[in-house]
Amino acid sequence: MSKLLIVGTVAFDAIETPFGKTDKILGGAATYIGLSASNFNIPSAIVSVVGEDFPKKHITMLQERNIDTSAIEVVPGGKTFFWSGRYHNDLNSRDTLDTQLNVLADFNPVVPEDYKDAEIVMLGNLHPLVQLSVLEQMTTPPKLAILDTMNFWMEDAFIEDLKKVIAKVDVITINDEEARQLSGEYSLVKAARVIEDMGPKYVVIKKGEHGALLFHKDQVFFAPALPLEEVFDPTGAGDTFAGGFSGFLTKTENISFENMKAAIIHGSNLASFCVEKFGTERMESLNEEELQKRLQEFKELTQFDIKLA
Amino acid sequence: MSKLLIVGTVAFDAIETPFGKTDKILGGAATYIGLSASNFNIPSAIVSVVGEDFPKKHITMLQERNIDTSAIEVVPGGKTFFWSGRYHNDLNSRDTLDTQLNVLADFNPVVPEDYKDAEIVMLGNLHPLVQLSVLEQMTTPPKLAILDTMNFWMEDAFIEDLKKVIAKVDVITINDEEARQLSGEYSLVKAARVIEDMGPKYVVIKKGEHGALLFHKDQVFFAPALPLEEVFDPTGAGDTFAGGFSGFLTKTENISFENMKAAIIHGSNLASFCVEKFGTERMESLNEEELQKRLQEFKELTQFDIKLA
Repeated sequence: MSKLLIVGTVAFDAIETPFGKTDKILGGAATYIGLSASNFNIPSAIVSVVGEDFPKKHITMLQERNIDTSAIEVVPGGKTFFWSGRYHNDLNSRDTLDTQLNVLADFNPVVPEDYKDAEIVMLGNLHPLVQLSVLEQMTTPPKLAILDTMNFWMEDAFIEDLKKVIAKVDVITINDEEARQLSGEYSLVKAARVIEDMGPKYVVIKKGEHGALLFHKDQVFFAPALPLEEVFDPTGAGDTFAGGFSGFLTKTENISFENMKAAIIHGSNLASFCVEKFGTERMESLNEEELQKRLQEFKELTQFDIKLA
Repeated sequence: MSKLLIVGTVAFDAIETPFGKTDKILGGAATYIGLSASNFNIPSAIVSVVGEDFPKKHITMLQERNIDTSAIEVVPGGKTFFWSGRYHNDLNSRDTLDTQLNVLADFNPVVPEDYKDAEIVMLGNLHPLVQLSVLEQMTTPPKLAILDTMNFWMEDAFIEDLKKVIAKVDVITINDEEARQLSGEYSLVKAARVIEDMGPKYVVIKKGEHGALLFHKDQVFFAPALPLEEVFDPTGAGDTFAGGFSGFLTKTENISFENMKAAIIHGSNLASFCVEKFGTERMESLNEEELQKRLQEFKELTQFDIKLA
């Protein structure tokens, strides 16, 4: 069975939405990716760092989902990465209220021996040099390296580092505005082409409530987001999508374009649950029956029958 | 064979986009609807009004596409409706620079005898009382009455008239912002439910480059817009979509939800061509082979294979 290696933050978030606010709750890209991918019952490991203030129960929760947490370093006396943000009324944009890097500032990722030959590597949003370091520790080149990143790393101070890691991955997942920023092209079709020229053979552009696009050479696939009555908290939706995408590919051991289509649908399916409650709450309670039921809704939402002449 | 009755403007537009500008060119909701629907080789008629300044060649062009133009009234000495607008850089929003109602101000629509039993009625964007008058002239109730409208008619001065016509149609097509305005709900799922309670059994919400949603009770279908390298001029895209939707339903004589899914795809397919050139230019040159080729692209764009447990 293939293995999934995940790198990313394990952190605290404090979130405000039009529907309420939270105290410090469990968050972080690797947390969401791991939780999401765990639905495929695959061996996975998280490489990350937390402070001594990080509750054991969260680690236990991840372990209970069959996630190897041995490479989540606990820094004695250190404080866990903290992000706080407030979403606007439309939930499509947000302001960062506070960012405390804490132990993340000096994070030196160490890939566990068992995972240096992982078939799929999911690089969650983090400093590009941390992502690069993880890739460089692989003793067997992964079948598929997937990069998630964000606009923060596209600023002058980091863009050269980001380009280095982009050049080494097979798949990149970013949102539409980031694709435009990275490529300098407004049209997403053109943007994807420019980004493919930077290295990745596959470009996934996430459009939030408007779905996601997968580009590969002349091929395009589109997955809608499920139209929801209420989006409660978008935090972690992109990471959950990445976790579903990478988890499904790990499970099925098939990285063809056709199978990536299914992976995109699974990622969208999982993300549709993530936004229903604050933080990781919905992802922690999710079961297989709910997933299957909503997959059926995705089918009904998108599948049509047209006979071509 | 079923017949399609179309009401809407036949007009002049002057358009500015980031890519250029036009003088007065052929425009109008009924023009785009008629051109689009004509691709299904069905009997159709347009009810509209123009001034004496309207060139015969445009009427001839419509006739050559098998569209009955006998109910396009020509007002002696009158001037044709004129709209002028400038699109913003993202092409998703625009400013109206000029609107001259001219002959439209006193328009009294007269449905041709032959079309008083048309099976499908497509009410293009116009004053709601004109749309209502067309419906009231039908001697045989249509199998399907479809309403397209816009935010202008949702203002205090017109909203009661608009609600009257909404109450009498089977399908309404509006864009996402208009659906929110009309319903007072931000969530499109909730908005569709509120609008269904106003009368229409089917609600189509157009999201421009983000595709279109079809709602009917608990059923939802989503059609993406084709990711295009370049959108040149969005004018008429919504009308072209409506023309494809209504034209396909007229042709296939099947108004089931399943067939409406296909109709939505055909509408999206036609709209994807409309935006490639200024005004009606691309629609006038479109051929069946191009349509079929792009339908195949829509299939590849959206169809996936997931086996459910």
